[in-house]
Amino acid sequence: MLIVGERINSSRQRIAEAIRARDGETVAQEARLQSEAGAQMLDVNAGASLEREPDDLVWLVETVQQAVGLPLCLDSPRPEALRRAVEAHRGTPMVNSITGEEARLEVVLPVVAESGASVVALAMDEAGMPRSAEHRVGVAAKIAERATDAGVGLARIYFDPVISTLATDHTQGEEILQAVGRIRSEFPEAHVICGLSNISFGLPGRRLLNHTFLAMLMAAGLDAVIADPTTEGFPELVATAEALLGRDEFCMNYISHRRRG
Amino acid sequence: MLIVGERINSSRQRIAEAIRARDGETVAQEARLQSEAGAQMLDVNAGASLEREPDDLVWLVETVQQAVGLPLCLDSPRPEALRRAVEAHRGTPMVNSITGEEARLEVVLPVVAESGASVVALAMDEAGMPRSAEHRVGVAAKIAERATDAGVGLARIYFDPVISTLATDHTQGEEILQAVGRIRSEFPEAHVICGLSNISFGLPGRRLLNHTFLAMLMAAGLDAVIADPTTEGFPELVATAEALLGRDEFCMNYISHRRRG
Repeated sequence: MLIVGERINSSRQRIAEAIRARDGETVAQEARLQSEAGAQMLDVNAGASLEREPDDLVWLVETVQQAVGLPLCLDSPRPEALRRAVEAHRGTPMVNSITGEEARLEVVLPVVAESGASVVALAMDEAGMPRSAEHRVGVAAKIAERATDAGVGLARIYFDPVISTLATDHTQGEEILQAVGRIRSEFPEAHVICGLSNISFGLPGRRLLNHTFLAMLMAAGLDAVIADPTTEGFPELVATAEALLGRDEFCMNYISHRRRG
Repeated sequence: MLIVGERINSSRQRIAEAIRARDGETVAQEARLQSEAGAQMLDVNAGASLEREPDDLVWLVETVQQAVGLPLCLDSPRPEALRRAVEAHRGTPMVNSITGEEARLEVVLPVVAESGASVVALAMDEAGMPRSAEHRVGVAAKIAERATDAGVGLARIYFDPVISTLATDHTQGEEILQAVGRIRSEFPEAHVICGLSNISFGLPGRRLLNHTFLAMLMAAGLDAVIADPTTEGFPELVATAEALLGRDEFCMNYISHRRRG
């Protein structure tokens, strides 16, 4: 299970301010915190200021990689910011993201192809946010074809079913689980990732909803998640789910988590 | 989700003693406790003493039904005890259990057929405890055929994949999840139930393992569970999983659980 830490995102005021002030220590702290909680990759987003985004994202990449030796998930819809962040990144990054939208595929896929990066592929297109499993699987199939044509193999693709909250549509959990299962079985070489916490937006008890949904998603085939690994109980939940899914011989990792926790 | 409370079982010393002493108040207390925690049916087991079992089980049925107005899951492998308990039971009981073993099918199926009871069908046979999804689905198919021939429709059958612990075989979680998914899709009219807590026998942190596995099982198609509903967090977990699976319009039940809890 690939855990991508989500905390270094300029939609958080603390991060937006640190970026503006070039406060490297705050960013480095957030990086270390997530690494210690078990993140194997960190998402970095500097989208708060559109005109400064390319410079800001490059600064984030350099600052975070100086603090922790993890690969990064470069989070921007804009090709210029992505191109410069990919160049600044040491090792192989993940690009976050492409969608099924033609305009985005045309400009971002070449950046992914040239760099050897892996890529998050959101299951949304010109028709907007997906509601049904059908729509999500359809967009994934389109992206799979276009990516393969562009020289980006399925093993580099992390399909994201695009999670929206149960609060406004109580069928979303089941539609997303079905989409994950079908994408997993139709594209077994590819990965499936999601931004977990959207499922509980606007509802009480978000931690229980998020963790319960994560267990279900992992059983359906999810093998990567963008989440806050410092949330209470998150590392234990992942270790528990992996043990239950047969990915932990003799439950050794689970048992050592219990001993530490 | 049908929640069957498991606490009135003579393998617990407190219950064995209450049965022996005909201490109705202890049994009634256990019944009320589980009913208040959300159990919609109670398992009753008096198997500790083989020779007294039929009388003991009838006493349990009468005592529990006097205390709470719930239907019972009559838990015995022995046809004589089951026959007398079915007669003593008011309303429609569940018989727990048949297996794929010929000897048991022959003697217990007629009791089920005549009484109109529903029945737990354990996915085990002469070959013993199942290890693979394949074995479990095969036994379920055999039982489905034999039950239908005997006049017991699939809608009355609760298939139980037979959970054994991860501690001695770390593949069991995944094999059981696969079995549940396949039984659900091959016999959509039937139900799938399990005795949850066996998954964590011999491991630390049993509650987290049990609850995480329950979420996965429900996503795979489980619609009934034999468990202790008084365990901390159990009713919330079930409400959360049902909301995530689209069975709770506007998340009303989930939200009212949060308010109460």
